[in-house]
Amino acid sequence: MGAELEEAKEIIDQHLNEENEKVDLTPYDLAQHLKTLKKHDEDLYNEYLEKLDPESLGDVAIELPDHMLKDVIETIPSEKIVEALEELESDDATDLLQYIEDIDEEKAKELFDGLDKEDQDEILRLRSYDENEAGAYMQTELFSANLNEKLSTAVERLREQKELGELENVSQLFITDERHILKFAIPLEDLILFDFNSSLKDIIEKSEEDKYKPHVAMDNDPIEEVVEVVQDYDMNSIAVVDTRGVLLGRITTDDIHDFIQERATEQIYNLANVGDADEEENSLLNATRSRGIWLFVNLFTAIISSSIIGLFDDAIASYVALAVLMPIVASMGGNTGTQALTVTVRRLALGEIEFKNAKPALIRELGIAFINGLIFAVLIGLVAAFWFNRPMLGVVIGTAMLTNFFFAGFFGTVIPLALKKFNIDPAVGSSVLLTTVTDVVGFFSFLGLAKWILL
Amino acid sequence: MGAELEEAKEIIDQHLNEENEKVDLTPYDLAQHLKTLKKHDEDLYNEYLEKLDPESLGDVAIELPDHMLKDVIETIPSEKIVEALEELESDDATDLLQYIEDIDEEKAKELFDGLDKEDQDEILRLRSYDENEAGAYMQTELFSANLNEKLSTAVERLREQKELGELENVSQLFITDERHILKFAIPLEDLILFDFNSSLKDIIEKSEEDKYKPHVAMDNDPIEEVVEVVQDYDMNSIAVVDTRGVLLGRITTDDIHDFIQERATEQIYNLANVGDADEEENSLLNATRSRGIWLFVNLFTAIISSSIIGLFDDAIASYVALAVLMPIVASMGGNTGTQALTVTVRRLALGEIEFKNAKPALIRELGIAFINGLIFAVLIGLVAAFWFNRPMLGVVIGTAMLTNFFFAGFFGTVIPLALKKFNIDPAVGSSVLLTTVTDVVGFFSFLGLAKWILL
Repeated sequence: MGAELEEAKEIIDQHLNEENEKVDLTPYDLAQHLKTLKKHDEDLYNEYLEKLDPESLGDVAIELPDHMLKDVIETIPSEKIVEALEELESDDATDLLQYIEDIDEEKAKELFDGLDKEDQDEILRLRSYDENEAGAYMQTELFSANLNEKLSTAVERLREQKELGELENVSQLFITDERHILKFAIPLEDLILFDFNSSLKDIIEKSEEDKYKPHVAMDNDPIEEVVEVVQDYDMNSIAVVDTRGVLLGRITTDDIHDFIQERATEQIYNLANVGDADEEENSLLNATRSRGIWLFVNLFTAIISSSIIGLFDDAIASYVALAVLMPIVASMGGNTGTQALTVTVRRLALGEIEFKNAKPALIRELGIAFINGLIFAVLIGLVAAFWFNRPMLGVVIGTAMLTNFFFAGFFGTVIPLALKKFNIDPAVGSSVLLTTVTDVVGFFSFLGLAKWILL
Repeated sequence: MGAELEEAKEIIDQHLNEENEKVDLTPYDLAQHLKTLKKHDEDLYNEYLEKLDPESLGDVAIELPDHMLKDVIETIPSEKIVEALEELESDDATDLLQYIEDIDEEKAKELFDGLDKEDQDEILRLRSYDENEAGAYMQTELFSANLNEKLSTAVERLREQKELGELENVSQLFITDERHILKFAIPLEDLILFDFNSSLKDIIEKSEEDKYKPHVAMDNDPIEEVVEVVQDYDMNSIAVVDTRGVLLGRITTDDIHDFIQERATEQIYNLANVGDADEEENSLLNATRSRGIWLFVNLFTAIISSSIIGLFDDAIASYVALAVLMPIVASMGGNTGTQALTVTVRRLALGEIEFKNAKPALIRELGIAFINGLIFAVLIGLVAAFWFNRPMLGVVIGTAMLTNFFFAGFFGTVIPLALKKFNIDPAVGSSVLLTTVTDVVGFFSFLGLAKWILL
């Protein structure tokens, strides 16, 4: 383990000494190496935290888990953290301040008070958005110009902003009128071809009509819709405007990437009854509690299913084969239902189906469930008939299987659609609801038919 | 339904008549409207297919489901499809030709023969890559220049390429030496600030060292790794080079977006034993078969679990409460195992854990399983003891529950890690393996303990 520590130390040293810091170590990597330091040598770790310049500090702090961000708050003087916040892009500064507030509200207030008025206003504005709104994902730093300016004036401003480190990741020039209403957006790959001495107005007038009409997001638009527009039009960034059309900021692809990735993780976790936020923190107890809550719900529904079995205890006592076979009916129903559920949840998320045009999707799922139900009804019927040497047992389990497949296909599709209709995330809790249905239907149809036909 | 047809027709008309076609209708949208036409009026649909100009045709064809692409092949003259292929970017042309080949091999060969030599060579090269290699995702169209050129010469070339419609979505200039080896990459946001009369060599020499050293992907690199680099460094596109460093092409963010989205869908589907490729086609039978195969595997493992129950048929016959309670032990184990499994699969995919440093992840999962196991052992113990009025039954089910939680946490973590180690997708089949373990352990521990202690 000494080698691991040495390596981390060396890499961070290189980073600290290098002139151009950002070439080869991402903030995420730096955070990982600091984590290694902390594990092996707490003093050295604190020493390195203090060595970071404000720019690196801000970038790294966003990537740190809560317990290490707490170290930052406790070790580093507030003035330096304020400086780090000022170096960050507005959306990242807002996020970092939020993380700090989650740990130490007093400290966050102190840091906020230390920022200059302009940064404070920006952060207040960005914080006013709900986490599902496009505004919450935008940064206010962008490359813009007035329609009456010359292109060379705009380019000079870009130079200044870049030299001051105020602007990165530029892919288009946003052109506004006197009232700051966004009128046009010219990608840099076009901009570089124009005569820099022309006025922007001339450039626009000489271009094909509508060529530079921008795609925009409204600040209150759901972020999912914005991501769809960006994907459909293969854009590198999108302008965010308010209801009057005033340019407020832009959302860049790195944020879009992160959103797609995080949303997918959230869905995968929710389908398995795991909370994504609780898993991503380092706290074992939060993860345990969050999973435990869903296990508790599952315990409750499992007891309901079991009480169905309890209704038929006399049948089971007189013919134990029923107890042996009943989990198969439930398990197959659960599986086929989960297939339908997962496909429906994902297609909803990708915008491929919506509540109002869900009928073909439902028919499709019922079709699949019916065909597979028939096949597996025959299969399990044969297996059961030969296993226990009783043909009617095969008929009973086959019929129960087909019934359960049908319910599984139906509820696997309808549960997420109904949740979506009521604006509940269709991935959350749907699998528990579904398996309750498939267990109850599976046990009830199999044991009920058996009692009626066999006994 | 007539209204739907009218609307689709009108929108496509607008698109066909507009000067600048690409402003407001994405190829995906156009494909959707064509689908509506086909549903309502086959003749009109064919008429509109023929009206599409080659550029729209290529873009739309990629988005069409197989049965509609078949219509294109059968309705539209080969010369026009060849033209459409030539209008597409190299990666898209390669994909489209592949789709056509999947439907009609002869036709694909005929179209390929109609392309000019250069396009043929490009397609052959791109097709030589495995679908997991970076090379399969690159396009060969890019903005590049020789180190000795003047910036103005490069910009002139960009103008020509753009006017010919050969190049879109440019975000950087790639600079190569005489042997086409990639040396530097300058983002457009920097390029626009330089004196256009300077030579590129001068520009590079006057810049900070390493500032324009490019991040590159090797053509044989796994695409997952390339996506990670692009995300870590917030890039808009990445150069692809061969082992000697020769510039071959670039991968743009739109392809990265698609990859992230598709990979997430694949994972979600695989975890639910659904094949993503079979779901995305429109064929009900393919989806039914692909799901059916996994259901067959599940039937097999469910029979194994049931045969465990069969070992204890005498115990169940003499005490039916066992049959009532046993599904609870299995269900809770399955759920807690699925939680561990899902988190492990996703963290593997995101690169947060790897086989070699998986110990902390395993310890974490065992910790969570143990704590929740204790809690739910006590809960279910109390419920069972009161329900059947027999305290020792509570002890037995509690012990079985804790045992199953422990196995669930262990195998939920180890199964995906082991699959990954053997280069098998850890999402495929792991949930079937896992529930086999939790069913077998659940039934065996509960019924075994009951037989030993209670009877």
